[in-house]
Amino acid sequence: MNIAEDASSPIETDVAIIGAGPTGLFSAFELGLLAVSFHIIDALPRVGGQPVELYAQKPIYDIPGTSVCSGQELADGLMKQLAPFKPPLHLGHRVDGLERQPDGRFLLTTHQGLRLLSKAVFIAAGVGAFEPKRLKLDGLNELENQHLFYRPPDPEVLSGQQVVIVGGEDLALEQAIDLATRQEARPARVSLLYRRDGFQAEPATVERFRSLCAEGKIDLVVGQAQGIDASEGRLTALHILNVEGHPQTVSADKLLVMQGFTPRLGPIADWHLAMERKQIVVDTQKFQTSEPGVFALGDVNTYPGKRKLILSGFHEGTLAAFAVAEQLSGAPVHLQYTTSSTQLHRLLGLSTS
Amino acid sequence: MNIAEDASSPIETDVAIIGAGPTGLFSAFELGLLAVSFHIIDALPRVGGQPVELYAQKPIYDIPGTSVCSGQELADGLMKQLAPFKPPLHLGHRVDGLERQPDGRFLLTTHQGLRLLSKAVFIAAGVGAFEPKRLKLDGLNELENQHLFYRPPDPEVLSGQQVVIVGGEDLALEQAIDLATRQEARPARVSLLYRRDGFQAEPATVERFRSLCAEGKIDLVVGQAQGIDASEGRLTALHILNVEGHPQTVSADKLLVMQGFTPRLGPIADWHLAMERKQIVVDTQKFQTSEPGVFALGDVNTYPGKRKLILSGFHEGTLAAFAVAEQLSGAPVHLQYTTSSTQLHRLLGLSTS
Ligand SMILES: Cc1cc2nc3c(=O)[nH]c(=O)nc-3n(C[C@H](O)[C@H](O)[C@H](O)COP(=O)(O)OP(=O)(O)OC[C@H]3O[C@@H](n4cnc5c(N)ncnc54)[C@H](O)[C@@H]3O)c2cc1C
Ligand SMILES: Cc1cc2nc3c(=O)[nH]c(=O)nc-3n(C[C@H](O)[C@H](O)[C@H](O)COP(=O)(O)OP(=O)(O)OC[C@H]3O[C@@H](n4cnc5c(N)ncnc54)[C@H](O)[C@@H]3O)c2cc1C
Repeated sequence: MNIAEDASSPIETDVAIIGAGPTGLFSAFELGLLAVSFHIIDALPRVGGQPVELYAQKPIYDIPGTSVCSGQELADGLMKQLAPFKPPLHLGHRVDGLERQPDGRFLLTTHQGLRLLSKAVFIAAGVGAFEPKRLKLDGLNELENQHLFYRPPDPEVLSGQQVVIVGGEDLALEQAIDLATRQEARPARVSLLYRRDGFQAEPATVERFRSLCAEGKIDLVVGQAQGIDASEGRLTALHILNVEGHPQTVSADKLLVMQGFTPRLGPIADWHLAMERKQIVVDTQKFQTSEPGVFALGDVNTYPGKRKLILSGFHEGTLAAFAVAEQLSGAPVHLQYTTSSTQLHRLLGLSTS
Repeated sequence: MNIAEDASSPIETDVAIIGAGPTGLFSAFELGLLAVSFHIIDALPRVGGQPVELYAQKPIYDIPGTSVCSGQELADGLMKQLAPFKPPLHLGHRVDGLERQPDGRFLLTTHQGLRLLSKAVFIAAGVGAFEPKRLKLDGLNELENQHLFYRPPDPEVLSGQQVVIVGGEDLALEQAIDLATRQEARPARVSLLYRRDGFQAEPATVERFRSLCAEGKIDLVVGQAQGIDASEGRLTALHILNVEGHPQTVSADKLLVMQGFTPRLGPIADWHLAMERKQIVVDTQKFQTSEPGVFALGDVNTYPGKRKLILSGFHEGTLAAFAVAEQLSGAPVHLQYTTSSTQLHRLLGLSTS
């Protein structure tokens, strides 16, 4: 449900959740079980966070109890689990402002004018509203989404084409390996352009990449992009300067730029929360930040022992949900099991009679 | 794989995991991803811990990403996930002894004579090797598993029978509700015997129970069991003393005693680990106990904010696995994603070529 909002009076809720990645979605489910109301806001046009943005069709093997699921399937599973609580979602809204009000509540404002008043805030913003690092060359912007891509397009788009991938990290190398070994919709040629002949990627990936280069299935081009040739709105070639400083031309129909992402924590970095290396510092009892009532969960937080794993966000979001429920009710909240609690069954919309 | 052991020389491994509940099984998976070897030991004849022992056929709704699964399905899912690491399991072995050796390793000994030498220990023992609280009446023991049960038997066994449930907590009340509202294999009569007319159960469950009593679908008998009648090896009646101290007889074919469990942490309480209210105290960075190299995970541990939930055991086991991997290698272990790491794919037995 994407909510239509009225700019004049702010939406009121118990908890405002910033981020609809795995952590934000599961925290919302736990709040639902505790009968605490929430709204979820995400800058992206869809839910799912990194797993959907960066690896929707790739398998994840370490979601506990699920031996394999894709990034998209994980998001679908979390949305299905959350469905009984009819989650109010505000997609395409980047939260820019967070301010405590005189009455102790928080006013959140988004880039697009949404205003939300809440008693607590869950920051589940992951690496932030991230942006791919762009390639800046004259005339390139106009080709975006047709001949220039910052994320892998549908396989069909690259079928039979001369594809040049730009980048030297895991995602770029994996993409080259994937395209070069594809059974269907294989490109006519796969090249990888990187500024040096040495990669910031996992040794095993590099090894596989090198052996495909040796077999002639991938062309490695070492150098820097300087310009493009285009004709009738189509890309035709890429001009580069090679390592010795000589110009070179590589024919290219499609360009896949995978130089990594700039995590743009953006406004969150200005909210005066205690931070350490761009992560928000939290305790491990409630996952609360230096600002009472503001919690940070998932990839965005740090504490001793922190590992940026999906399953950790689930635990953190759950303990934060209990902490908020106790703060709101002013009394200890006892654990109930979803298996046996008729109260939870009622909240989950399961008939108990 | 249940290992045949040689009593003379101990088995050697990196980590000995005590408990094959959800926490023990998932911790093993994480150790596998980190290429750390392990053996798992459980007192019960099967894996799965409480979900399989106590609610194998009941639904769980809060496993992240899985909107519903039964206790048995959860255990099956965890075993499938763990399968690539060919987990060495020792079932039906209760760990009684844990002693540090002169070389710093730990010697574990079981009730049944198994010996295991490990560099670290994961105690994932839940509430311990728990035992149902027994009903002590002359001649009753002989009827066990035929006419007297401490866990719900197959539905067929109770079909058309006069069933008396003994107990006043959630599990007993839920069992009465379940039997009285069953569509198939319904008992001829469902009675519940408890020492007083007031229950230690969730209000909503009590309410539902009371309304079924009012409809005549459950008979509530208030009193204490004093003796039984049996004939030809079959139970026929239960003698009780009612609240006013008068004897009373209830006809009964099958007796379901659900007076709760006595968590028998047993030997673990004698290992000189710092404890708090029968839980082992751990830090939240590594989930290590007061004894370096010994970790406590899942329901058995405590720390500020602790909630006894399955999903928390998953997180705790994961951080402990990383801590052990770092201790064993003497170097920081960097996070790799199961989605993209060719090294993890190799460990998981997935072909990467
Ligand atoms: C290639 C790859 C493979 C991976 N594989 C695995 C794996 O196998 N297992 C595993 O456990 N982890 C894996 N991870 C890590 C995993 O994706 C992250 O741990 C997880 O996504 C964190 O979830 P999150 O909800 O905390 O943050 P995210 O998934 O990053 O979601 C955060 C959301 O917040 C939104 N947001 C940020 N700032 C704002 C703002 N100001 N206003 C509104 N919305 C905002 C973002 O748009 C985003 O949707 C992988 C990561 C990558 C990149
Ligand atoms: C009726 C009921 C419903 C529940 N519903 C939910 C729910 O919906 N969601 C949720 O998150 N949680 C629920 N729980 C709680 C959940 O079952 C526990 O949190 C979970 O089982 C803990 O897992 P564990 O692996 O830490 O311990 P356990 O599942 O208790 O497993 C511990 C294992 O260790 C073994 N062991 C103990 N001592 C020894 C020894 N000395 N030697 C060898 N083996 C030993 C035991 O035999 C056991 O198999 C429920 C619990 C109950 C009782």
